[in-house]
Amino acid sequence: MAELETSKLSEAFSMNGGDGPNSYAKNSTLQRGVVDATKELLSKAIAESLDIETLLSSKTFHIADLGCSVGPNTFFSVENLLEALEFKYQNQGLNSQILEFQVFFNDHTPNDFNMLFKSLAQNRRYYAAGVPGSFYGRLFPNASIQMVHSSYATHWLSRVPKEVADRNTPAWNKGRIYYSNSTDEVVMAYEAQYAEDMEYFLHVRAQEIVHGGLMLLIIIGRPNGTPHSDSRANITFQILGSCLMDLARKGIVSEEKVDSFNVPWYCTSPQEVEAAVERNGCFSIESIENLPAVKPPDNVSKTQLFASHMRAAGEGLVKHHFGEEILDELFDLYQKKLEEQPSAVESGKSISFLVVLKRKA
Amino acid sequence: MAELETSKLSEAFSMNGGDGPNSYAKNSTLQRGVVDATKELLSKAIAESLDIETLLSSKTFHIADLGCSVGPNTFFSVENLLEALEFKYQNQGLNSQILEFQVFFNDHTPNDFNMLFKSLAQNRRYYAAGVPGSFYGRLFPNASIQMVHSSYATHWLSRVPKEVADRNTPAWNKGRIYYSNSTDEVVMAYEAQYAEDMEYFLHVRAQEIVHGGLMLLIIIGRPNGTPHSDSRANITFQILGSCLMDLARKGIVSEEKVDSFNVPWYCTSPQEVEAAVERNGCFSIESIENLPAVKPPDNVSKTQLFASHMRAAGEGLVKHHFGEEILDELFDLYQKKLEEQPSAVESGKSISFLVVLKRKA
Repeated sequence: MAELETSKLSEAFSMNGGDGPNSYAKNSTLQRGVVDATKELLSKAIAESLDIETLLSSKTFHIADLGCSVGPNTFFSVENLLEALEFKYQNQGLNSQILEFQVFFNDHTPNDFNMLFKSLAQNRRYYAAGVPGSFYGRLFPNASIQMVHSSYATHWLSRVPKEVADRNTPAWNKGRIYYSNSTDEVVMAYEAQYAEDMEYFLHVRAQEIVHGGLMLLIIIGRPNGTPHSDSRANITFQILGSCLMDLARKGIVSEEKVDSFNVPWYCTSPQEVEAAVERNGCFSIESIENLPAVKPPDNVSKTQLFASHMRAAGEGLVKHHFGEEILDELFDLYQKKLEEQPSAVESGKSISFLVVLKRKA
Repeated sequence: MAELETSKLSEAFSMNGGDGPNSYAKNSTLQRGVVDATKELLSKAIAESLDIETLLSSKTFHIADLGCSVGPNTFFSVENLLEALEFKYQNQGLNSQILEFQVFFNDHTPNDFNMLFKSLAQNRRYYAAGVPGSFYGRLFPNASIQMVHSSYATHWLSRVPKEVADRNTPAWNKGRIYYSNSTDEVVMAYEAQYAEDMEYFLHVRAQEIVHGGLMLLIIIGRPNGTPHSDSRANITFQILGSCLMDLARKGIVSEEKVDSFNVPWYCTSPQEVEAAVERNGCFSIESIENLPAVKPPDNVSKTQLFASHMRAAGEGLVKHHFGEEILDELFDLYQKKLEEQPSAVESGKSISFLVVLKRKA
């Protein structure tokens, strides 16, 4: 076989590993809410969109979870998928005992797979494997996957658009770390990067997924027609950027360092996803549905939750660029700013939506 | 599907992770020699024993390396297998470019998969996945693997035979850490454990390997007819045991602690492997061949090599039972003893052999 289509990813980040107080494992409550809220939608998607021929075409049903992180949410998602698949199987009068599942847990190579593996349930009903590598590249053999699931992962771009960090281009993002409050040139650079990433993502998945196979993408984004600057996720990054500029003014980090730092995250809309799928042409859109809003637990303030979650998800990025020393001060300042202007964040628009795609024959 | 047949492994150890001075990665020179010495034998096995129908039955050729550790030897082995497979493919006038390989790297869950994944070559010709879990249990779906490879791994028992660590049985192994210099009861307990482990190993592999699929096992053992006490590997464990008893006499560890410590390693013979395969009945023995003896590099003494290798392979076991504090003193003492009585070790008998099995239809 020829060399694999190499991943286009030049920058790999991962969620905070381990299970310490700032770990992703301990700070993914919001996503856990998403897992629960999604369960019903996923079951419906499988019941309505998965052809029985696809279910029966192989004695082993192969599932890939892309951007799995370290758990436990990936395990809950997989259990939900399996339950829905077994239900569908039994509904057809088939004996689901003879069906075998193999689940591939994928994330970037720096992801803490050791912790993921240690957290696997002993009494699980599936064969588990870890697959390291960017999902913006080939991960699996041709036509070897019946179902792809990815939750809260495809908002990560494969990279910061090059020109944004280059002071010699009009898209240089001076004094900011994000695109949504920036110049048109920067916004366009991010939009182009997202379009390119999605194009490649769909291109490689189309090779890996069997005809009739499903792709279930849970995406955090902004409602159609919402300007980038009004998106809640985007506002939180703008605030993080202003915190970094505060640290620069205090001399704790250099302004150049802030200038060259940009967050490779893009807040898409259902329309943009649809457009990308149509350009690719290999998948039919079975459904796009908004997830119900998830309420934070009663004993935690929204601000705390946003702050701890930003730290768990974004700390790796910040540490990689600025070093470990600034982390506590930065994220304390961040939480303070959120508390000072709760309406700024809460007025921001945010949706999570499930996109169900089917690989065309 | 029903719950997986759970692994029978109750004790999981792994090679030293990371890449520090005592890591397995830096101390597996002898095995690297084995990899090179084996290359030709593996090519021959594939050329002679792999049916072309098996090669063509699936567009993806699935290889499992059981007991892969952290590399780099597992990668060299895989490259050698791939080369031989492509050669065979081309020899049949087929275009090997369309063949895809998926390689499953398996080891115990505590293995350092993070390091393994980081060491994967960027430009490899195969899809890689890590599979955590004991190979004395199911790891893969039914009939999903075309080739199993395992090098220097199946000498690890799934566990220390229970009775050996139980002071209330006649097989209690007081004052020793190993079976080969012990009572008949202890020797028989180890022999029975090995037979049981091999029975289960072959039972589960028979389910996972496709009809016509090959299993290539590289085993360090003792020549047929050699008493356990004359095996070189066994002698080295006996010496490690005497070092631990020395530490007990000095009061550095308690004697009870040594009494309850036993090494779950068994030094088999080609005959015993043959007998296990015949009892199982699902595999034909294609060949059993001794590997050429591997010379240590010129600039390293044999004693040093044995000592550093024992530490890399056995440190995890010792640490688990006795704690980290004794490691340096123990392995220094071990090297000293080897130097004092080089002939004791060198007179020991040792062979490495390749067993080629084919899954019967």
